[in-house]
Amino acid sequence: MLENLKIGILGGGQLGAMIIRQAIDLGLSASIMDKDAHAPCSRYTSSFFCGDPASFEAILEFGKGLDVITIEKEAVNINALRQLEKQGVRIFPAPDTIEVIQDKFTQKQFLLSHHIPVVPGEAIQGKKDLYQYENKLPLCLKKRRDGYDGYGVMVLKTKGDIAAAFDAPCVVEELVDIKHEISVIVARNEYGAVACYDPVMMVFSEEKFVLDYQIAPAQIDKEILKKATILAGEVADALKLVGILAVEMFVTKENKLLVNELAPRPHNSGHHTIEASITSQYEQLLRAVLGLPLGDPGLRFPSLMMNILEGATLNTDKRGKLNRLLDIPGAHLHWYGKEGNRPGRKIGHVTVTDNTIENVIAKAASIRKILN
Amino acid sequence: MLENLKIGILGGGQLGAMIIRQAIDLGLSASIMDKDAHAPCSRYTSSFFCGDPASFEAILEFGKGLDVITIEKEAVNINALRQLEKQGVRIFPAPDTIEVIQDKFTQKQFLLSHHIPVVPGEAIQGKKDLYQYENKLPLCLKKRRDGYDGYGVMVLKTKGDIAAAFDAPCVVEELVDIKHEISVIVARNEYGAVACYDPVMMVFSEEKFVLDYQIAPAQIDKEILKKATILAGEVADALKLVGILAVEMFVTKENKLLVNELAPRPHNSGHHTIEASITSQYEQLLRAVLGLPLGDPGLRFPSLMMNILEGATLNTDKRGKLNRLLDIPGAHLHWYGKEGNRPGRKIGHVTVTDNTIENVIAKAASIRKILN
Repeated sequence: MLENLKIGILGGGQLGAMIIRQAIDLGLSASIMDKDAHAPCSRYTSSFFCGDPASFEAILEFGKGLDVITIEKEAVNINALRQLEKQGVRIFPAPDTIEVIQDKFTQKQFLLSHHIPVVPGEAIQGKKDLYQYENKLPLCLKKRRDGYDGYGVMVLKTKGDIAAAFDAPCVVEELVDIKHEISVIVARNEYGAVACYDPVMMVFSEEKFVLDYQIAPAQIDKEILKKATILAGEVADALKLVGILAVEMFVTKENKLLVNELAPRPHNSGHHTIEASITSQYEQLLRAVLGLPLGDPGLRFPSLMMNILEGATLNTDKRGKLNRLLDIPGAHLHWYGKEGNRPGRKIGHVTVTDNTIENVIAKAASIRKILN
Repeated sequence: MLENLKIGILGGGQLGAMIIRQAIDLGLSASIMDKDAHAPCSRYTSSFFCGDPASFEAILEFGKGLDVITIEKEAVNINALRQLEKQGVRIFPAPDTIEVIQDKFTQKQFLLSHHIPVVPGEAIQGKKDLYQYENKLPLCLKKRRDGYDGYGVMVLKTKGDIAAAFDAPCVVEELVDIKHEISVIVARNEYGAVACYDPVMMVFSEEKFVLDYQIAPAQIDKEILKKATILAGEVADALKLVGILAVEMFVTKENKLLVNELAPRPHNSGHHTIEASITSQYEQLLRAVLGLPLGDPGLRFPSLMMNILEGATLNTDKRGKLNRLLDIPGAHLHWYGKEGNRPGRKIGHVTVTDNTIENVIAKAASIRKILN
């Protein structure tokens, strides 16, 4: 039975911990690998392996005796996963899928080759190549690999910005004039079954490219939302995905959809599914990679998700603030229990649920006041 | 912050695992103690302590360095908990509360002394004392200590049954003519705040005293349900409870409420709160013992919970049956991943949620067909 299946997760952060939360519901054993010995997941498994998922040797060692491996971050060693696959370990999403997505330019080319609309962009080797774009500013510059949560992304507005730009292989993208940013979580299993969550609308802080809050269901035209879920399903099929995938999209001023970025794993934009959906994205991932039937992705009620970021403001009377937050009915705190102290990083989130979107927004406003 | 709090749980079964599930949401570390090295919880913590919670020495050893200890079973060594309390470890529920409840006769006397109506009963030392009740049959016989899930309970109908009865300190109870069995989960924190869940109706299999299924909200007269929640609050206050408590009650043919049994911990009759309530009983327990504000216990939608028992029927094509169950929208599987094979024991449960009680009952009927 399920308890005899040995599942491994590459990455031991909050996403991994939320996978373990659902692994408990299926009685599964989960082995976790993270390079930080104090990663959140290290507390919630008897099988924690301290090692870098980017290391060939470390992954080979970790994979011994496991039945299935999945990921909670993309920066993993693909060659090692291919090697383990040859040894009989099932790797979901497939190494090919992860590899395509790991590199933002390869990802874009893949999508284009499958006739999926994307944000136009070109590849450059390093900073020196940027000067040819001087007359095309403003532009968005993204590192091809290893960016996350706004790290590895910057907007170039002036020539001065070029001088301060990343000196690494990057994608240079047009700054699209966007009306909305949405995200669709889609799951697909090895039998080709696909389940799409309702699109969520994401609102980003302008400075840092960090998500400010997200609302589900997205409060935009239903026809666009329907197209977005169809598009997400097409991406999942094109990738022959087994697992779950976040498809972040732009809705342009002309109501066109452009795929911005993919993440082949549980995603921030699916946190709300724990409380607000019939099947959470974490349970859906486990169902997909274990060959179980996919669950109903239906939304039960409106929700809003806000990240909690490390910072001086929160640190003043943190316990008091969290207590006041916990006193709001329908405010679901997820506190990641991270060690250390790096201003700006995500240390928790709150999902607010209620019967109407208006109530959800009103509660979220109270929470924002408490946390700031 | 919360992640620096070291919480210990005595007992490492499925209830403990469901507490860990919620501990993840608060970023807490949880140390678990169980005498079975392969208990479900052993997989979900980096801090598993193999030892018997009934042992004085084992608990003292386990408690070193912990901030708070709570329980997921009553059979724990009270003297050791008192000793740890003197050393500064916070024990919730208090050792006095657990001690009163551990013994079914002491429990009954305590409730009577607080004017809480109970099933009438008397204490006996052992089997020889039973013969004086020969002319009062039928009666219900319950071991004073360590009974659970129908173990330690039997109905005496004939003189022959007396010969086959437990030979241990027991409570002899009248067989009350009951209309319904209900359970109310109530939480109370150290500041005296009380939160009551809606009563659930429990339906037991007649032979084995094992729960067949439970429905929330209970489909009985609203006035009775209101009285039941008031009664549960009174019991929590009388016990000066800090934690959560299941108050199992009988509704007699005359619509009177009688308290049947108490359990000062998460309880089977609160499993449905994971999916169906705003705050689950597991989260509520953590909030109560950590001095956080109690959460909203409100029910979001109707639900029905069924235990899954080990047995020959299930074992025929178990994986196929679970797959068909997972294919029903709103059927939430909790598979405990227990080792071994003892027919009749609980190895999982399913919570069914839907918008109407009729839909919930119809889905439950399909599930029963699948599992049988």
